[in-house]
Amino acid sequence: MSLFQKHQPLLAKAIEALHARTFFAAFPEHPAPAVYGETADADGQTKFKNYLGKKFEELKQTPANAWAGEEESPYTQERLGISYPQYPVSALVENSKKAFASWRKLSADERAGILLESLDRVKKRFFEIAYATMHTTGQGYMMAFQASGPHAADRALEAIAAGYEELNRFPVNVTWDKPMGKFNLQLNKEWRAVPKGISVVIGCSTFPTWNSVTGIYGSLITGNTVIVKPHPGAILPIAIFVAEIQNVLTENNLDPNTCQLGADTFGHMITKELAEHPEVKLIDFTGNSLFGSYLEALPGKTVFTEKTGVNSVILDSVNDADKVAANLAFSVNLYSGQMCTAPQNFFIPENGIDSPSGKISFDEFAQKFITQINSLVDNPKAGPFVLGAVQSKKTSERVIDSEKLAGKVLLKSRVVENPQFKNARTATPVVIELDANKKEIFSKELFGPIALLIKTKNTEQSIALAQELAQTHGAISCGAYTTRAEVHDQIADAMALAATPVSFNLTGGIYMNQNAAFSDFHVTGGNPSGNASFTNPEYVTKRFTWVGHREPVKA
Amino acid sequence: MSLFQKHQPLLAKAIEALHARTFFAAFPEHPAPAVYGETADADGQTKFKNYLGKKFEELKQTPANAWAGEEESPYTQERLGISYPQYPVSALVENSKKAFASWRKLSADERAGILLESLDRVKKRFFEIAYATMHTTGQGYMMAFQASGPHAADRALEAIAAGYEELNRFPVNVTWDKPMGKFNLQLNKEWRAVPKGISVVIGCSTFPTWNSVTGIYGSLITGNTVIVKPHPGAILPIAIFVAEIQNVLTENNLDPNTCQLGADTFGHMITKELAEHPEVKLIDFTGNSLFGSYLEALPGKTVFTEKTGVNSVILDSVNDADKVAANLAFSVNLYSGQMCTAPQNFFIPENGIDSPSGKISFDEFAQKFITQINSLVDNPKAGPFVLGAVQSKKTSERVIDSEKLAGKVLLKSRVVENPQFKNARTATPVVIELDANKKEIFSKELFGPIALLIKTKNTEQSIALAQELAQTHGAISCGAYTTRAEVHDQIADAMALAATPVSFNLTGGIYMNQNAAFSDFHVTGGNPSGNASFTNPEYVTKRFTWVGHREPVKA
Repeated sequence: MSLFQKHQPLLAKAIEALHARTFFAAFPEHPAPAVYGETADADGQTKFKNYLGKKFEELKQTPANAWAGEEESPYTQERLGISYPQYPVSALVENSKKAFASWRKLSADERAGILLESLDRVKKRFFEIAYATMHTTGQGYMMAFQASGPHAADRALEAIAAGYEELNRFPVNVTWDKPMGKFNLQLNKEWRAVPKGISVVIGCSTFPTWNSVTGIYGSLITGNTVIVKPHPGAILPIAIFVAEIQNVLTENNLDPNTCQLGADTFGHMITKELAEHPEVKLIDFTGNSLFGSYLEALPGKTVFTEKTGVNSVILDSVNDADKVAANLAFSVNLYSGQMCTAPQNFFIPENGIDSPSGKISFDEFAQKFITQINSLVDNPKAGPFVLGAVQSKKTSERVIDSEKLAGKVLLKSRVVENPQFKNARTATPVVIELDANKKEIFSKELFGPIALLIKTKNTEQSIALAQELAQTHGAISCGAYTTRAEVHDQIADAMALAATPVSFNLTGGIYMNQNAAFSDFHVTGGNPSGNASFTNPEYVTKRFTWVGHREPVKA
Repeated sequence: MSLFQKHQPLLAKAIEALHARTFFAAFPEHPAPAVYGETADADGQTKFKNYLGKKFEELKQTPANAWAGEEESPYTQERLGISYPQYPVSALVENSKKAFASWRKLSADERAGILLESLDRVKKRFFEIAYATMHTTGQGYMMAFQASGPHAADRALEAIAAGYEELNRFPVNVTWDKPMGKFNLQLNKEWRAVPKGISVVIGCSTFPTWNSVTGIYGSLITGNTVIVKPHPGAILPIAIFVAEIQNVLTENNLDPNTCQLGADTFGHMITKELAEHPEVKLIDFTGNSLFGSYLEALPGKTVFTEKTGVNSVILDSVNDADKVAANLAFSVNLYSGQMCTAPQNFFIPENGIDSPSGKISFDEFAQKFITQINSLVDNPKAGPFVLGAVQSKKTSERVIDSEKLAGKVLLKSRVVENPQFKNARTATPVVIELDANKKEIFSKELFGPIALLIKTKNTEQSIALAQELAQTHGAISCGAYTTRAEVHDQIADAMALAATPVSFNLTGGIYMNQNAAFSDFHVTGGNPSGNASFTNPEYVTKRFTWVGHREPVKA
């Protein structure tokens, strides 16, 4: 049985799920022993510890002369000491070019088989990936497991499914038969989905696998070779993915350089040189807007970006203000606000929020919000684990600096102790009250646990501001609370025009930060927060070109 | 019965045809009286003559204060004297913005109904469009009828079908139902295909409808409003399309400014100002590479280009050299080489071309080619009508100048007399022999009836040059003649990598210049000849954004 035959049933289900857009997940999201094995967690932790202080020698790609690595755990604030092979850009490109010659000639079925098999292998390594993710990104254990493991694998599967579907969208060949009156003109025609060439996937420090695997698998399924350029601070989680892809390639007598790890260091970043190399045709990027926009403007490249955005919450009217405050408090605490989907700007009318028990004033709601934040943060069984640690020192500094913004600090950020890691870099959310006329402050992304409560004239102004910010500065998510149908429609329309998905009236255990594979398009591509979307058809069709050849049918 | 219901059967067939890619045409390509009516041709000619020297007053868009027009017939070399409403860019954009507010809210069905109805109306005007096309572009009657009428309408239908299909690719709403163990998380989700906004379609002087209608209909079906900016030398053909779209809009109580004609003059071109306007989100362009590349680099715009290319013919081995020469001679004569798909560079090995009767030397094949050109050109019943007239004086000058190129002039260009139009601007093909080392000469587009016979070392070099030119300077078509299977595969692969479709071994009544709707992707988007393709899925998906909203199911 070929790898394609082995995985074909899952692929078929995934393609169906792409269109159904109801709940679908191929990889169980809970790290349950019953699912993953009784010793899976302990084994994963051991494997992670064994990496520390050593060369990462699992890769099958062309050996390197130099090794380096600078990852540091936000939980221990110590170096991991893992080193990765280092290459000149020319060598990565040359290796990729050679691998392209054979990878592009495989059928979509063959490529799908290889890639699906690699996900199957990665599944057995979700726990070590989880620990690797914790100790590079600062994510809490549960998020690290889910986001870097099953959720990333589901997103990868989604990209494979979308690519496979598009590759099969048009016939391989047909006879074109045109009646000309006395005779028919007949041509044999064939269509080829021609991959664009070498693809570079540039990772970020906070979601090293989730934000990279769609580009990696999206490029690979469509016949391109990939150079994975992780953030120098978060290499290990994606290195394990790459190692498993290379294992399956090698076992199937394919060139392991089809997917290379091109790690670098803070002192010698290769990203620009890679991106500008004329042989590099595709670039995937997650990160800051400045660099993303520079990449988007590179001539002759197809570029997919997720940049920064300013996410808003519009508060108009609620059924239960405490539940709303609790839900939003969780959203700003989750991974210390270091998600691209975390809310930053909370627009609240100066006259307050309508509720069944009457108006809730701005100050009352602010108090409820602060109470919920404190209650979560100060719960030793939840707070430290929901918050995780702060990936970058700069984020901690930004949180402290935010207290000097021209607003009223309603809640100061604190350092909480993580029971497992005494030295963890932590920061609880800072909450600042601002007037709606302070647009210069709230119209940029303040990455980290920073929540701005913005006092607007009314909901009209709240909507107008949320829309304007999304259109001019980008937004990846939006929360809205209203019990009035006409306001609901107004928000849905205004934010749709700003290409921003809205989560309405979320309470309980679901949050605006969350985005599910096979259902939620992640980033829409229609506002400045990024030009690409996980995983719409464009995300894969732009990675190859339809070329048709034709020839008269022989008489 | 709604317009959608009326046209739904055709739409369904067109969507099927998009995927089948076999022959499909909704609009009969022959100007047969039996199909279009006994008096259709004469009526069309009369209608065309009635336009001359007057204001074009058929448009329903906001009236203008100024009128101007500078079209000139390449057949008479006299001004048509037709004037069109002129607007400041700000007025066109303001009108479009207003129309967008309602057009975007129509359903895909409603928009499809309106647009399909407009094609039905245009069908009744194919003859006047044909005469308008002849006397602006210089095309011969038959090409003018086919390209600007039925073939353009088929391409428009193709864009409507592709857009309609993509708009319906994902469900309008679903319940997302995630099992959480003890309970299910349930969200109502909905997806909206949000149009990007104002679309500007920039026309060219040689194919004023064929090259513009895909962008116009592609943008309209996906909910964008359109400003049509024709070439100042070829307005009337597309003005008639726009008039019919506006008629249907007005009859259905919709804003006629949904699709405006934004004509300008050579002395006061509005293209740049329009393209750079911040409210303009989509740009379609056919024309020169310099301007096309400038448009592609505009930040924040989605741009679709067809620019220039250098089309090659690779001659390796043939079954019947005379038939091959005849086919290629027709290709260079057709519309005096003014098609973007016309061949320019003919690569012939210095040792000649293999054939069943032995080697045909370079000189022998050159002679056969010249003989076939002369025989067609000097046939008074065919030559003048196949050649048509030369649209621009610059093209005539380029043909004359080409005789000074550093090659051997094998055939000089001549002026032939058109029996119907004594004053027609004509030019027969010039044929020049060049050595393969003269790459600086043959690596640019020499627009017009200019054929370069390039002597290569062998077929390997021919293929390498054709591939390199396509990759570095772009190519829209490629012809190849070989009877050897391995060379066939080699060419198919090399040109596929250069994103160039190859027509193999064409003889008889089909030519490499021709591209059929619903089957041949026109321009692939994968080389410098343009970044877009008629009509692949990307051509329509890039015109809108998928945005999903969600809300918990009420308990």
